[in-house]
Amino acid sequence: MPKELNVPSRTLMTPGPVEAHPNVLKAMGSSILGQFDPNFLEIMDEVKEMIKKPFGTKNEQAFAVDGTSRSALEAALIALIDPGDKVLIPAFGRFAYLLGEICERAQAEVKFLEKDWESTFDQNDIIESIKDFQPKIVAMIHGETANGQMQALDKIGAYCQRNHIFLMVDMVATYGGVPIKVDDWGIDVAVAGTQKCVSVPSGMALITYNQRVKDVLDARYQKELGLGDDERSDDPIVSNYLDLSQLQRYWGKERINHHTEATSMVYALHEGLRVILNEGLNNVYVRHDKNNRALVAGIYAMGLEIYGEPTSKMPTVTPVKIPADIDGEKVRELLLNQFGVEIASSFGDLKGKIWRIGNMGYSSRHENVLHVLASLEGALSYYGANINKGEAIKAALDIYNKE
Amino acid sequence: MPKELNVPSRTLMTPGPVEAHPNVLKAMGSSILGQFDPNFLEIMDEVKEMIKKPFGTKNEQAFAVDGTSRSALEAALIALIDPGDKVLIPAFGRFAYLLGEICERAQAEVKFLEKDWESTFDQNDIIESIKDFQPKIVAMIHGETANGQMQALDKIGAYCQRNHIFLMVDMVATYGGVPIKVDDWGIDVAVAGTQKCVSVPSGMALITYNQRVKDVLDARYQKELGLGDDERSDDPIVSNYLDLSQLQRYWGKERINHHTEATSMVYALHEGLRVILNEGLNNVYVRHDKNNRALVAGIYAMGLEIYGEPTSKMPTVTPVKIPADIDGEKVRELLLNQFGVEIASSFGDLKGKIWRIGNMGYSSRHENVLHVLASLEGALSYYGANINKGEAIKAALDIYNKE
Repeated sequence: MPKELNVPSRTLMTPGPVEAHPNVLKAMGSSILGQFDPNFLEIMDEVKEMIKKPFGTKNEQAFAVDGTSRSALEAALIALIDPGDKVLIPAFGRFAYLLGEICERAQAEVKFLEKDWESTFDQNDIIESIKDFQPKIVAMIHGETANGQMQALDKIGAYCQRNHIFLMVDMVATYGGVPIKVDDWGIDVAVAGTQKCVSVPSGMALITYNQRVKDVLDARYQKELGLGDDERSDDPIVSNYLDLSQLQRYWGKERINHHTEATSMVYALHEGLRVILNEGLNNVYVRHDKNNRALVAGIYAMGLEIYGEPTSKMPTVTPVKIPADIDGEKVRELLLNQFGVEIASSFGDLKGKIWRIGNMGYSSRHENVLHVLASLEGALSYYGANINKGEAIKAALDIYNKE
Repeated sequence: MPKELNVPSRTLMTPGPVEAHPNVLKAMGSSILGQFDPNFLEIMDEVKEMIKKPFGTKNEQAFAVDGTSRSALEAALIALIDPGDKVLIPAFGRFAYLLGEICERAQAEVKFLEKDWESTFDQNDIIESIKDFQPKIVAMIHGETANGQMQALDKIGAYCQRNHIFLMVDMVATYGGVPIKVDDWGIDVAVAGTQKCVSVPSGMALITYNQRVKDVLDARYQKELGLGDDERSDDPIVSNYLDLSQLQRYWGKERINHHTEATSMVYALHEGLRVILNEGLNNVYVRHDKNNRALVAGIYAMGLEIYGEPTSKMPTVTPVKIPADIDGEKVRELLLNQFGVEIASSFGDLKGKIWRIGNMGYSSRHENVLHVLASLEGALSYYGANINKGEAIKAALDIYNKE
């Protein structure tokens, strides 16, 4: 028989999951409410409104999906796709291919616009590709967790809106960490997660979409058998669980019975969002930016290199090139087992070549930045890497003390 | 700006969600571990083994799906279904139609074997229908939360096994509350939830399946684009998020990257399962049975009627007929707002005709049974119902004190 759970403390400096905020953990200890208890419905309504703020949207529709981030990516894509529909996916990293995987399984005709992973696209190149391929949907990533690059989006959305193309954007790794303007950028549907800058455990996803998407959903709505057979659709969404047309009626005034909402995760999300809104979103972005600059200064001062184009680097992820002759996994193990500090490896071609240091949510703290720099320097020294010693902390403190 | 979360205490006597066990709530306050942290992988491995026990299975495959119960129902069905496949669904209540909804969206040819909702099937009638329809899959409900009836399953599975038909059973409302024998009953794939007899918040589902199902999954496995394009399938599962062939490789030794596991819900599940295994499953079933008998005795003593066939009533749900001239919703509101006690309404044709009183997990406690009886009697008296007064508690205490 397993023993009672006994979880060690970690300094989580990965690009998710990050440390949950203490108020979030406290909220999760609250007792359970029934899913239609008026007190719970009020909490859901408050969550809906708070979700909109970091997205920078006044959309009517904003709610949570009971699954990890990718559940809402899939929900968003299958809401819009009919078999044979054309989807253009500009790819500058691993997670663009996840979008493609989802679309291919939904029988879309997928075209990847590919480039190396070291920088993002010139938006005009994407617009040219849209003109050429004439997709129904453009699906893309805002911040690529896998390689730390962040795509500018302000022109693409405007073009899509003018040309009646749907733009779906994965903002999982940027939501709550950098300014996002879903409405101003002309994004039709945007998705985020809980386990990154919202400082909530993994297991829930956030979504918002505009009237254009809602119109599609309303046309495809099919009432679930068991609740009645009086509202059937010719073109229902292929998944019942990830059917946004039902989810919006569960989170909305109709309160149709769909799943039983994940009570404690809603509590957690309520507090995670409330904490950052109380801090003030602009203050939150300034904090992430400053911690990013301190981290980057420390990494450079140590003599290490950062992967990719600096001007488009995400503030929330720093990809560090693993020095030659150093086993990246051994360094990660030493950090985890001896310092209790976790940093991440990467995927595909970048596996073994970069570490990824996160700077997200409650983990984005002054002391965590110093802790990860000090322990990384210690681990690299231990394994005999040729680095500048004693410089990283000085460089980071210069940023903190100067401002 | 919303205020800090402040959740009232409730006595939850619905058929889910139920009150979370205190150890579960405590576990959810634990700090976050990275998804591939060896300490977290050990917790996942322990959860896998514990999941099997209440299912009564030695299957290799048992794990959690990050979604509410119906996410795993859908995952199980779409794992087995190809378009045009025949699925037989014996229906004695609302949730059978949910299975049908999922199958129809997956383009299966669905046949419902229908009956009134007051009792379950003679297993031979189901077997005759299987012979007649020759389905690839039989999908059914063990315990119908909506009307409180529980289907005997011991003969159907044996027939399906002999005839190479897949049997999928929804055990959401019985798992952990009544004895289940997945292996002995010849069930290929079984699904349960967390928010009922496991006393864990909603948001996670449990699944187990045998080698026959694993063989199908292995044949359909497709490695996700972004991790590589070297393992593609001719017949991939339509959903990427609910793809069991990937989930088993995430929970298994391969540890492929799929979603980021829902850390705190895994902690909660670990403790929810550990608590009932420590109590001893047989003791858990005896407790549910005794509380059920006390509740039923009290309901009858009050002069109320119970819906449906008594011999096949679930111990975990008691459907009570709403007395004539009583507004069932007003009674529920009084119970919730004045007593802090929640009982449930029902669905479809039964809406407004029955209340459903749950008896599940941590909510299945001596004091909760007395509390719901006393408050229901109080509410009915308040609204002038013609009931026997002062008899319900006496009848329930007779059960408790006699044994």
